[in-house]
Amino acid sequence: MAKPICELNWEAYQTLSFQEKMVYLMQSGGTPYHTLFAQQFNRDLLGQLATLANEIRFIAKSRKGTEFLKTVVSHKRAMLYFSQPSSRTFLSFLSACQILGLQTGEVRDTATSSEFKGESREDAVRTFSSYFDLIIMRTPEKGLAERMAWLLSNSERPIPIINAGSGQDQHPTQALLDIYTLLRSFEKTGGLQEKTVLFCGDLLRGRTVRSLSQLLVNYPKIRQVFVAPPQLQVGEDVQNFLTDRQANFELTDDFQSAIPEADAVYMTRIQDEWDQSKGESAKIDTSRFRFGKTELDLLKSTAIVMHPLPRREEISTEVDGDPRAMYWRQMRNGMWIRAALIAMTFGCEQTIHAYFKASGTEIV
Amino acid sequence: MAKPICELNWEAYQTLSFQEKMVYLMQSGGTPYHTLFAQQFNRDLLGQLATLANEIRFIAKSRKGTEFLKTVVSHKRAMLYFSQPSSRTFLSFLSACQILGLQTGEVRDTATSSEFKGESREDAVRTFSSYFDLIIMRTPEKGLAERMAWLLSNSERPIPIINAGSGQDQHPTQALLDIYTLLRSFEKTGGLQEKTVLFCGDLLRGRTVRSLSQLLVNYPKIRQVFVAPPQLQVGEDVQNFLTDRQANFELTDDFQSAIPEADAVYMTRIQDEWDQSKGESAKIDTSRFRFGKTELDLLKSTAIVMHPLPRREEISTEVDGDPRAMYWRQMRNGMWIRAALIAMTFGCEQTIHAYFKASGTEIV
Amino acid sequence: MAKPICELNWEAYQTLSFQEKMVYLMQSGGTPYHTLFAQQFNRDLLGQLATLANEIRFIAKSRKGTEFLKTVVSHKRAMLYFSQPSSRTFLSFLSACQILGLQTGEVRDTATSSEFKGESREDAVRTFSSYFDLIIMRTPEKGLAERMAWLLSNSERPIPIINAGSGQDQHPTQALLDIYTLLRSFEKTGGLQEKTVLFCGDLLRGRTVRSLSQLLVNYPKIRQVFVAPPQLQVGEDVQNFLTDRQANFELTDDFQSAIPEADAVYMTRIQDEWDQSKGESAKIDTSRFRFGKTELDLLKSTAIVMHPLPRREEISTEVDGDPRAMYWRQMRNGMWIRAALIAMTFGCEQTIHAYFKASGTEIV
Repeated sequence: MAKPICELNWEAYQTLSFQEKMVYLMQSGGTPYHTLFAQQFNRDLLGQLATLANEIRFIAKSRKGTEFLKTVVSHKRAMLYFSQPSSRTFLSFLSACQILGLQTGEVRDTATSSEFKGESREDAVRTFSSYFDLIIMRTPEKGLAERMAWLLSNSERPIPIINAGSGQDQHPTQALLDIYTLLRSFEKTGGLQEKTVLFCGDLLRGRTVRSLSQLLVNYPKIRQVFVAPPQLQVGEDVQNFLTDRQANFELTDDFQSAIPEADAVYMTRIQDEWDQSKGESAKIDTSRFRFGKTELDLLKSTAIVMHPLPRREEISTEVDGDPRAMYWRQMRNGMWIRAALIAMTFGCEQTIHAYFKASGTEIV
Repeated sequence: MAKPICELNWEAYQTLSFQEKMVYLMQSGGTPYHTLFAQQFNRDLLGQLATLANEIRFIAKSRKGTEFLKTVVSHKRAMLYFSQPSSRTFLSFLSACQILGLQTGEVRDTATSSEFKGESREDAVRTFSSYFDLIIMRTPEKGLAERMAWLLSNSERPIPIINAGSGQDQHPTQALLDIYTLLRSFEKTGGLQEKTVLFCGDLLRGRTVRSLSQLLVNYPKIRQVFVAPPQLQVGEDVQNFLTDRQANFELTDDFQSAIPEADAVYMTRIQDEWDQSKGESAKIDTSRFRFGKTELDLLKSTAIVMHPLPRREEISTEVDGDPRAMYWRQMRNGMWIRAALIAMTFGCEQTIHAYFKASGTEIV
Repeated sequence: MAKPICELNWEAYQTLSFQEKMVYLMQSGGTPYHTLFAQQFNRDLLGQLATLANEIRFIAKSRKGTEFLKTVVSHKRAMLYFSQPSSRTFLSFLSACQILGLQTGEVRDTATSSEFKGESREDAVRTFSSYFDLIIMRTPEKGLAERMAWLLSNSERPIPIINAGSGQDQHPTQALLDIYTLLRSFEKTGGLQEKTVLFCGDLLRGRTVRSLSQLLVNYPKIRQVFVAPPQLQVGEDVQNFLTDRQANFELTDDFQSAIPEADAVYMTRIQDEWDQSKGESAKIDTSRFRFGKTELDLLKSTAIVMHPLPRREEISTEVDGDPRAMYWRQMRNGMWIRAALIAMTFGCEQTIHAYFKASGTEIV
């Protein structure tokens, strides 16, 4: 692993363009060192990650395979620093670490981390970097992961940071697992191209939609359909981005008419935790933006239903048993793609490729 | 491990008798898949578990043995889902997992699991089942473990559930460790038959007493003596059960007269957390239902004193040093029997038997 | 590991002198069993620990080495019992355990340990000793670690206790890491002798200063300079101790004049959590007791700046990049010295020495 060192001070670093920052975020071979933004991943890199995740998933099917996987990154230890509670993402990353043999430490609630209140977050993160080899970090604060990545790359003991969600801002590994799920699901139906992806729900405030939508432009001839009540329709920033990239997209509030053409329906929940005046979401009629038996009947037999979870009432539990309901597998995909990302961060791809090749006959 | 699949819906499942449910709880070889109820364990199965626990305990005495044990279930990972705090049971299960090489994740307080509030417990448990291979679950809610076991057996990714305490309802592994302690303690005095087991304390509200009492009818000619103040005497459900099984039992409030005949004295604490009108327990005179120096003098030299812990003043610390005080060893037995149960759940008994046999000469 | 058994009762134990207690705290070979007090470590033992820590640190530089280290104490499991939150010390001990292959359990906040409220701390600690092989314990209560060490040595299942901080009283492993940092830093400048160590800040209430100051008298011709505002100057107990040992020390409130002669400047933060009437610290002018650019210019080129962390404003972040700023490495030293201490507690020094010797050529 070639560590990118950053000798710029913070003020100078901030003036860089995204492309200029990439020098400090990526390893020399083009793989990520710090994972901060979904945009760090182009189509080629997404493909590499998906291949690696597939291999890990297949290898893990045999007992011998699980034992092998536990040696892949067993010389490293990871810090899970979750200043914002999120059991799902936490357990997914924890599992990814355990699969690859990384030992972990954690600070995940305010009670146990109270001691850090007296000190700056910079010092807390340098503390973690003294004891661990990787920091997986979730925070409600926009931009904090990036600042900490700069801090470490600028220190005498640089270690990588993986952003596990930074406020409304970025949640890059969620975008990775979404893309991985689409790639897996369309493996036998022509791959992730010329597909219609329908987003439905609170498209204004969900960072998930924003990130995935931006990554989809990497794939040819994708059509994106945004279905939401007008007050929650996808933001102008996303629309402008898609227009700039000459992406094919449209906005509507007619869910049922849009479903039959969809290859993937990506449902999201109302993000009422971001309400500005408490309760404004409750006033919006969202009843027409739910997925139940009726919607299932409208859906193509080859299409899939996704959801980043947790869900509330936007997907009926009646849908759970249908083979097109992909959200549980999507969640499990998160574990595999995160394992792939961690292995790649430590430059351990080749070890996995080699084992996969050698054991190729017993797999499939 | 042959996973029992349940294709019944929840309403249909609930109408089953206990015997009919057993099909969905046990593996084809007669060992437990889901461990929900103490009654799943008959005398033969209890014997098998005790043997396995003995072997694990002996193997763990040597360094080489501990290294072996850590490979037995090292291809699996367990989720400790403790929505009700219980450090003792938690640490016992954690230790059992560590002894066998299972890696673990945990959700064990409300702060870190707050994210799950927005979603149903069903979805939370399916999340855990996406990442882990076993769920060890403690909850204040009666019947929840059973519902979750059904849910998973009814899903496309069934994994076993071990009930680590579900309200006042069931705490099957506590009953297992109690039986194991009795079996170990009477190994050299004729085994667990023709013995007098005395229960003392709050017999009305302790699930421990209920479960153990029910399991004891599996053993020949056991006499059960229930010693309690009238307000806390053992419930009619237990009495009816014992009468139905033609078990030998009696009720009394004269502790000192009963002690000399006891082979085991099982002390329990006043469960005032279940008081209906706050403080009713405090009004009951429990001073005659404590075990101290005086009671120790009345006790047979071959008898034992048990307690599920934590204790308050019902056993004097003066008793701790006496060789008949079995409660610390009883607690440690919990770790061994839980390790045995987990190994059995994953069908790893034979690996342990084989190692034990092979290393037989160096043991004892 | 020869376990020292204590058959004295607590009352009798308490009447012992420190030297008499040592019999129950140390193993027969002169290494620590329970680590309770900094004073248990004489110069020879400190040297042995530092050597072991150095070896572990070097071995950990290679992947093969980290794999070896994880087998050194892999047959043991440790309980981290932190009834007082301290993420830094916690993570340092956790890392030390992970490096050596010990599995760990933890009780580290009041929410999860609430069940223990009903029972005595003695019973809680005996619970931990039933499941684990070592207790690493932090508590706000003075003397508790010692009482628990006695309890376990007096029980039928003695296991060692390491004091990870007991109130204002003792924090022996902090003193160990401070000495280790001084030893490392002066390796090429004549070792830890004939050096001037300057303490600055709140010298009255910091147990760190007290412990380190007492250990320094083990080294020849050390001069200790205590720099503080009069209200926070080092206590009479320390002064009397140093006078008794004929140590060379002085008190001053003129920081800048003292800096040029210092070989090590040990900064501490204002311990306002110990204020008797809330806010008394805030009234003291501490502005002249901070280390910034100006102070750095006054400092010898071979000198070092230490801090137990967390820091507030007593060291400017401008100092962080200077090679003489030793506090981050000091923190990481804590992980190595704790690993050394744990290895020594379990009698595994020779395994490490042997590996280090054998791999000597590839190291350095």
